[in-house]
Amino acid sequence: MNKSVGRMVSILYRKNQVYLNTALKPYAITASEIPIITYLLNHEGASQEEISSYLVIDKGATARAVQTLIGKAFLRKETDPDDRRLNRLYLTEKTRQLRPCIQGILLGWTDYLAEGLDPQDVDTMYRVLNQMIQKVENVDFEEIRRNI
Amino acid sequence: MNKSVGRMVSILYRKNQVYLNTALKPYAITASEIPIITYLLNHEGASQEEISSYLVIDKGATARAVQTLIGKAFLRKETDPDDRRLNRLYLTEKTRQLRPCIQGILLGWTDYLAEGLDPQDVDTMYRVLNQMIQKVENVDFEEIRRNI
Repeated sequence: MNKSVGRMVSILYRKNQVYLNTALKPYAITASEIPIITYLLNHEGASQEEISSYLVIDKGATARAVQTLIGKAFLRKETDPDDRRLNRLYLTEKTRQLRPCIQGILLGWTDYLAEGLDPQDVDTMYRVLNQMIQKVENVDFEEIRRNI
Repeated sequence: MNKSVGRMVSILYRKNQVYLNTALKPYAITASEIPIITYLLNHEGASQEEISSYLVIDKGATARAVQTLIGKAFLRKETDPDDRRLNRLYLTEKTRQLRPCIQGILLGWTDYLAEGLDPQDVDTMYRVLNQMIQKVENVDFEEIRRNI
């Protein structure tokens, strides 16, 4: 059995991207735009910097995706009234109405992957992945490299 | 506990990319180039199409990464003597010598993530992720979408 988290996660990530691009095509949303939309569904008014840092996507890529989403009328940008240097992002009504479709599509992938597998094992996998995510949230990458 | 494979995998994937970019910097290799190099370490002479399809990376992105890697003298391209339309990719000696470093860096991430966690739970996670990978290998994305 192959035991490289990096490799396994990469395969599942890339397949998920292909799935999302297929499933979201009717809504004209791409796999790389969906994390921004889902983040804003729960954090309306977030700034571009906050999104970029939370999603671990570099600032340039975030700025490009935000610009495309504004162009497609999924988002709008508003200057913060208390801090004119800060731009806050809001979903448009059209995007808010897509919430159930988006959530259905995201859950569809999880359901497909877990279907037919031992539910207890799948729960253990969730627990371990969550523990790993907690670890990486404040990881010092240089330190890992030094300890190899 | 959050139970979305897609979301968890995305977070771990992106953090892994940041880690790889940090750890591979001394070798002038990026996170997006490493899957091509590791694939060729085990499949010397593979064609660009084979790599693209195995790694689920689109042809354009694969072609760009291959070109950059040739430019940095990590790969070389050779026309297949039996089929002049086919280009085969080979690692250069410099890249072959990096094998232990690359494997150390890739394993470093896995070791870091698994460190301190229950080994039996981690094994269960590996087993479930492998089952999921087997599922997605021949997935019909349109079918999942129709069944949501």
